[in-house]
Amino acid sequence: MAQRLIVIGGDAAGMAAASQARRRRGRDDLEILAFERGHFTSYSACGIPYWISGTVEERDDLIVRSPATFREEHQIDVRTRTEVTGIDLDRREVVARDLDRGGEVRERFDTLVYATGAVPTKPDWARDMGGVFGVQTLDDGAAVRDWLDAEPKPRRAVVVGGGYIGVEMAEALVQRGLSVTLVEQGEQPMSTVDPDMASLVATAMRGLGIEIRTGVRVSGIEERDGRVAAVVTDAGSLPTDVVVLGLGVRPNTALAAAAGLPVGTTGGVRVDRRMRVPGMPDVWAAGDCVETLHRVSGMAVHVPLGTHANKQGRVVGINIGGGYATFPGVIGTAVTKVCDLEVGRTGLREREAASAGFEFVTVRAESTSRAGYYPGARPMTVKLIAERPTGRLLGAQIVGRSEAAKRIDALAVALWNGMTVDDMTALDLGYAPPYAPVWDPVLIAARKAVDALAS
Amino acid sequence: MAQRLIVIGGDAAGMAAASQARRRRGRDDLEILAFERGHFTSYSACGIPYWISGTVEERDDLIVRSPATFREEHQIDVRTRTEVTGIDLDRREVVARDLDRGGEVRERFDTLVYATGAVPTKPDWARDMGGVFGVQTLDDGAAVRDWLDAEPKPRRAVVVGGGYIGVEMAEALVQRGLSVTLVEQGEQPMSTVDPDMASLVATAMRGLGIEIRTGVRVSGIEERDGRVAAVVTDAGSLPTDVVVLGLGVRPNTALAAAAGLPVGTTGGVRVDRRMRVPGMPDVWAAGDCVETLHRVSGMAVHVPLGTHANKQGRVVGINIGGGYATFPGVIGTAVTKVCDLEVGRTGLREREAASAGFEFVTVRAESTSRAGYYPGARPMTVKLIAERPTGRLLGAQIVGRSEAAKRIDALAVALWNGMTVDDMTALDLGYAPPYAPVWDPVLIAARKAVDALAS
Repeated sequence: MAQRLIVIGGDAAGMAAASQARRRRGRDDLEILAFERGHFTSYSACGIPYWISGTVEERDDLIVRSPATFREEHQIDVRTRTEVTGIDLDRREVVARDLDRGGEVRERFDTLVYATGAVPTKPDWARDMGGVFGVQTLDDGAAVRDWLDAEPKPRRAVVVGGGYIGVEMAEALVQRGLSVTLVEQGEQPMSTVDPDMASLVATAMRGLGIEIRTGVRVSGIEERDGRVAAVVTDAGSLPTDVVVLGLGVRPNTALAAAAGLPVGTTGGVRVDRRMRVPGMPDVWAAGDCVETLHRVSGMAVHVPLGTHANKQGRVVGINIGGGYATFPGVIGTAVTKVCDLEVGRTGLREREAASAGFEFVTVRAESTSRAGYYPGARPMTVKLIAERPTGRLLGAQIVGRSEAAKRIDALAVALWNGMTVDDMTALDLGYAPPYAPVWDPVLIAARKAVDALAS
Repeated sequence: MAQRLIVIGGDAAGMAAASQARRRRGRDDLEILAFERGHFTSYSACGIPYWISGTVEERDDLIVRSPATFREEHQIDVRTRTEVTGIDLDRREVVARDLDRGGEVRERFDTLVYATGAVPTKPDWARDMGGVFGVQTLDDGAAVRDWLDAEPKPRRAVVVGGGYIGVEMAEALVQRGLSVTLVEQGEQPMSTVDPDMASLVATAMRGLGIEIRTGVRVSGIEERDGRVAAVVTDAGSLPTDVVVLGLGVRPNTALAAAAGLPVGTTGGVRVDRRMRVPGMPDVWAAGDCVETLHRVSGMAVHVPLGTHANKQGRVVGINIGGGYATFPGVIGTAVTKVCDLEVGRTGLREREAASAGFEFVTVRAESTSRAGYYPGARPMTVKLIAERPTGRLLGAQIVGRSEAAKRIDALAVALWNGMTVDDMTALDLGYAPPYAPVWDPVLIAARKAVDALAS
């Protein structure tokens, strides 16, 4: 008789796990059931700001594989709009509720994959109210679009929080013609890079007409006729027609905790290198709901990102399928487009490096994306953080106007391999005038770091 | 009394060495004399095709630092149009001839840097004749430009050789409005990548109107009134008004060999890891005239490329300056723009891997530069060559329409560090919809290689 795999959560991690398991084990060997509380499976949450802005035209463009595709081509029984409300590990059952028609089912499993994703941080003041949105799911995206299209047309927007989503949403709303204010509690938006690099981003955002209010704390919202009317802050009230929350997310572990799955200090489910829940041989977890190892600091971190979710899901699926795979952790690589700026980072920021106990030097090198004489060469700033005295690369950040963001990849692979900045000066990177100066910006920064370590 | 450093060759390697030595040792400690037979120092030879095409407007844009700058700002006595004709290692003297005014000088040195670059391969049939050009020096570039501008205006061009320079020159001449034929002895132009990848390039070149004749050997040229009139091949005669030679270069070692410097099997001067000539403590060499270690094959190779010349020159200068630096070899990374294609490679091609004795698998993965739904996503082909059974990456090639070439850098750093394709599937590369699909093309190829190794 076939064994039965139940997957809780039908997005990147869950469906990657299910698909990989299916590739290795046919339906006679493994029955696969996936529960998803939303309407969709396997969509690109990262693409939502671009759909809202109109850069991406159709919602369905963001959907990688529909539930029907999973059912028909992969023989995976996907049940959307069905929320798992309980996990009984002793009886090996989950309880699931049909959100549209009501009613509960209990389903038995041999193997369980917990892939519930993350939930947006929602402060006390953010009551459910017309015009207040998170941007987490495709359903959220649809709600924002409907609000922007409906009469009376919103003219002003406040984005609360200056992380990736906040920054991307601020830009999206400007593209939709709204007058946008970004409120950030810290000293800079784009706090995913160091303040000196983030200030380059803030300047570009202001150039786009976005008003940035830093060091400001939101304490409430005001409504009029059931619609948001203003955001109340400790620096006054900001009238607005729409509020977007970009305050980050936390792992969705309510079910896991209730069932006794171990939850770490970051709030994410703990897993071993194979993405198995420690002490529970038939329970696996992956994606935005788990914590993972930061390979530089050696600490547990929660990094919700589609690329990790996909990789972790694949690892789970290979293991369930009878293969062997591990997820070796992350180094914090991320890239973002902000207006006409490209931003990349990997490893630790200064603050993170200090709090992890490292001693280090930092350098910042200015260069260009192409040979200076080649048309289209644009300025680029590369910042490196290198351990003192070893010279080991701890972190890197890039801000540039074009051909900048993905240059972080070479630095990420160097960091992944524990290279020193001295080693890096010799790296054989691609050179031709349309693509790089004869010393690539990455190499110029490495040289500067070598000098800084020697002084 | 100050010691005296003589540098033979005032381009990338020589002047990088001189500048680095000067940074570390003042003029009271070290006198620096640099001889250059051409008119210019430190220019971008790689930029010449773009100057000829008109993409780069001014010749001086290609000049990084003029002789005057070196003299005034770096106290380096640069003597242009002065050709070193002999090296006397016993007496520690060089003999140099003033090419403009005539006359010879003998100059004493304590330390010597040999950085004479490379000379273009010139077949017997390529007599000096109006309209026949190499593209090696800035003076060559000026000659081509003058020829294209002068009456009678050339309408047809034949480029002989389909390496980087040949391909770039074919495109440059098309941009100048000429009707261009590229003649290549091998089966494909762009032989720096495997034939399957090169065929993508050939298709793009044909799309630009370039006629490509492969498997054709040139046996002579015909002239009329002192001007080239046709290229004679074993497949007939090709009438033309200009001929550009893109047949590669060989190390310029005539002087070195005469003086007793060791020359390796590749034809390049042999050096140790610090770029010192073995057995000659005060003689150093760098740039296109030396051979270097290929870190993958373990063999000596000759890879003339500005980025290596600069790095090697820097290493020499640090060592002469009293510091410590090594050049650890190359892995064959290169990027090229061909029409609207971007081409990148690193490591070994299939043919090279086989002749180095490796067993391997190859995979080719099709993907896109950005998330498929994001505007501007373009197709990209990534090919990987992985050792069997270890999975160690041996080589990689990329051909794409945009944001493709520099993706080779992540692969180059992975290869540099001896990563396996299995390790690579977990790499934390930058992901955001404007920059990559959730599985970067590089990771998709790595996954495919893992599968190929398992089957």
